[in-house]
Amino acid sequence: MKETLPAIDNAILSRLESIVGPERLLKDEESLQRYGRDWTRVYAPSPGAVVLPGSVEEVQAVVRLAAAEGVAIVPSGGRTGLSAGAVACRGELVMALDRLNDIGDFNPVDRTVRCGAGVVTQQLQEFAAAQGLYYPVDFASSGSSQIGGNVSTNAGGIKVIRYGMTRDWVAGIKLVDGTGELLDLNRGLVKNNAGYDLRQLVIGAEGTLGVVVEVTMRLAAAPREPVVLVLGVPDMGAIMRVLGVYQGALALGAFEFFSEPALQKVIEHNGLQRPFETPTDYYALLEIEDQHGAGMDRALELFEHCVEQGWALDGVVSQSVAQAESLWRLREDISETISRWTPYKNDISTVVSRIPDFLAEVEAVVSQNYPDFEIIWFGHIGDGNVHLNVLKPEGLPMDDFQRRCGDVSRWVFDIVQRYGGSVSAEHGIGLLKKDYLHFSRSAHEVAIMRQVKQAFDPRGIMNPGKIFDAADSVK
Amino acid sequence: MKETLPAIDNAILSRLESIVGPERLLKDEESLQRYGRDWTRVYAPSPGAVVLPGSVEEVQAVVRLAAAEGVAIVPSGGRTGLSAGAVACRGELVMALDRLNDIGDFNPVDRTVRCGAGVVTQQLQEFAAAQGLYYPVDFASSGSSQIGGNVSTNAGGIKVIRYGMTRDWVAGIKLVDGTGELLDLNRGLVKNNAGYDLRQLVIGAEGTLGVVVEVTMRLAAAPREPVVLVLGVPDMGAIMRVLGVYQGALALGAFEFFSEPALQKVIEHNGLQRPFETPTDYYALLEIEDQHGAGMDRALELFEHCVEQGWALDGVVSQSVAQAESLWRLREDISETISRWTPYKNDISTVVSRIPDFLAEVEAVVSQNYPDFEIIWFGHIGDGNVHLNVLKPEGLPMDDFQRRCGDVSRWVFDIVQRYGGSVSAEHGIGLLKKDYLHFSRSAHEVAIMRQVKQAFDPRGIMNPGKIFDAADSVK
Repeated sequence: MKETLPAIDNAILSRLESIVGPERLLKDEESLQRYGRDWTRVYAPSPGAVVLPGSVEEVQAVVRLAAAEGVAIVPSGGRTGLSAGAVACRGELVMALDRLNDIGDFNPVDRTVRCGAGVVTQQLQEFAAAQGLYYPVDFASSGSSQIGGNVSTNAGGIKVIRYGMTRDWVAGIKLVDGTGELLDLNRGLVKNNAGYDLRQLVIGAEGTLGVVVEVTMRLAAAPREPVVLVLGVPDMGAIMRVLGVYQGALALGAFEFFSEPALQKVIEHNGLQRPFETPTDYYALLEIEDQHGAGMDRALELFEHCVEQGWALDGVVSQSVAQAESLWRLREDISETISRWTPYKNDISTVVSRIPDFLAEVEAVVSQNYPDFEIIWFGHIGDGNVHLNVLKPEGLPMDDFQRRCGDVSRWVFDIVQRYGGSVSAEHGIGLLKKDYLHFSRSAHEVAIMRQVKQAFDPRGIMNPGKIFDAADSVK
Repeated sequence: MKETLPAIDNAILSRLESIVGPERLLKDEESLQRYGRDWTRVYAPSPGAVVLPGSVEEVQAVVRLAAAEGVAIVPSGGRTGLSAGAVACRGELVMALDRLNDIGDFNPVDRTVRCGAGVVTQQLQEFAAAQGLYYPVDFASSGSSQIGGNVSTNAGGIKVIRYGMTRDWVAGIKLVDGTGELLDLNRGLVKNNAGYDLRQLVIGAEGTLGVVVEVTMRLAAAPREPVVLVLGVPDMGAIMRVLGVYQGALALGAFEFFSEPALQKVIEHNGLQRPFETPTDYYALLEIEDQHGAGMDRALELFEHCVEQGWALDGVVSQSVAQAESLWRLREDISETISRWTPYKNDISTVVSRIPDFLAEVEAVVSQNYPDFEIIWFGHIGDGNVHLNVLKPEGLPMDDFQRRCGDVSRWVFDIVQRYGGSVSAEHGIGLLKKDYLHFSRSAHEVAIMRQVKQAFDPRGIMNPGKIFDAADSVK
């Protein structure tokens, strides 16, 4: 599937222009570079053209044309993905949904709002706040990721332990499938057991079943004022004990962790301060919704208990919303900070209870095989998901670095497989993890997925080659 | 699809016997009658045989034999369904999962437990309570419905407003698909974005994609002591206003409604007492989790506000757990009480905000067309789902009754369609609602569903003719 596709010929380009207008079909090199990539830096972007439809009807017309002519389409949102799901590197037609950015039809009884696929996550968060409500799916790229992309990747982030993934907030999806038909899936209903819930299949399908053009999102009640704790902990086992103590006693909004090297990088490059003087191997960040001060008192009691047990060596509790936000930056800025080292990212998970043993095994493999590489650990340990980032040494060519990391990945994924875990907890498979899908899904499951794709996309034009190769996709 | 299938021949029967043992293959008339039906009383049960496998391997062997020989299988749980999804009326092989009733591998950190498909809902509820936890999906048939069936129908019930449907508690599914392959879907992970979430597709598929043999269920924290209120309200509009008042201020565990005729029937046949003297057209039942008495105080304040506004005419608040339970019986006993009139059941929904207009239109059609029939309304109005039950007059033959109700259903479903609602909010489609599926799903969606079924069940042996007819299913 690495081969370049036949160029999109001039006749097709002119028909595309007549659908969207000449200024909405981009062929200049800068646009091709910009729209052909996501946040991965592994594949050289090389789309055939970029089209920016302005309505659902234009999306349908473009897809019908592409289906008739066998043109591969890469649906494109904010392109903040980390698995190259939205990368166009084989001459595909990029369909950017930026112009479908209308937000409206807010209903206060149903607590739902209709979003065009191109609505930016932060735009939805701000819309919700203006209604006294809350859109709880939040992550580092909220300022540029789009709702259509969030749905297509089932975006997770920092509040999953409390609020779940994007999947849990999707009340309805309008999808243009690979034939150009518009499917109106679930229409905002709370209860609907009339046949297969195809909406669920589209969530996380990474654009391989069609183009998400509109989503009805559910909103949550506004949370109480958050209290944030950062605790210094000696080892992974202690992190899990701290989790157990707090999870049983308080409603946790988040439970994140990061390692000392991760903290050092963030402090050094963002001018932030250490949360407290004592350096420890790991740090846990907890968010608790305060209930009139009672949450804070209980949180401090539990902290003292953790210190007595030797599970926490030091800690700090936010005294204001501003301080809570600055503590969050210690965790949230990691990803962007380390991006200058073009890190090799693993996004792995297992069930929470097996995390200590799982991480011990992964650490052993990693420290044995990457003695010369810097490793940055962080992640959402409260839901069993850790991010293992290997930083590229400055002198090492990218190809060599990728190859060496790929080798170690196989050993890491062997462990993932033995623990019944996932090779992609929240980033998706895209191109980057395609060769590793079989560590988490059986050959029979992949065969079923291929046939499911066929049902939505008989010509195989929708983001072909992502997640898996399909025998009869556009090549 | 109404035609009887060819009889399962003696050679096949003897091979089935050799898989499960002779005492696990039932052919006597009483067993055929018992295992061939669910709680609907519309279709005469007529299975070819009943098989009771004792292990996943036996399920696989039976399915492989059935696939090779083109024998249709009806997977069978507690058979408490209300849409004939588990009815075998064409000579099918019923596969009852009763013997796969092992419950175990409880993990307190993950709060998960592994259930064989045949575990009874109440058994899971009691298991959870013994661990100090809670299995929150609850409904009238909890004492006999099985987990495999709950998953296959995405069972809802009386706590959906707070805890969601069965879907929200399924962390993993083991499915034997129509080829006899065992799929291990999601394996209990919280986060897993590695390809299509096929688990979601199996939930609510009514056994048409394969046999659910094992489920990993998530458990909730034990709820606080419940406070139950029953309010007498003058009309549907007032019910929605009461909902708005309480939903904004307190965490509602349930918000149910029932009509005066429903209450009369329950009181008359169960020896219960009226909640208060004033008869009103409708009643709302609210459950609130008490927080150290604060919930109760707030609930009473809001009740006074509703009385002042004329939205509530009278009311009662439970003073003990025992009283809360007896108030619940007024609502929970309705379904069983009216079953003696073999009611024609509609299980319809729309988005919550449109319920008042929706119900006004449905009521107009119903009162105009059923002047001689008794109508019992109740349901889960907090999630947009109402049950419209038409009681069969004693003298009227079943066929005439069904035909007349079917005619009116079309008019009701026209309204459902105009409101973007569902013809089956929680009961599923089965056989009973198959002719009405198109009111909620487009022809294109149904075509995709058919192909999705093909991917899991290429021979079309898994519960053929349920939800939709498939051109190439076993006929």
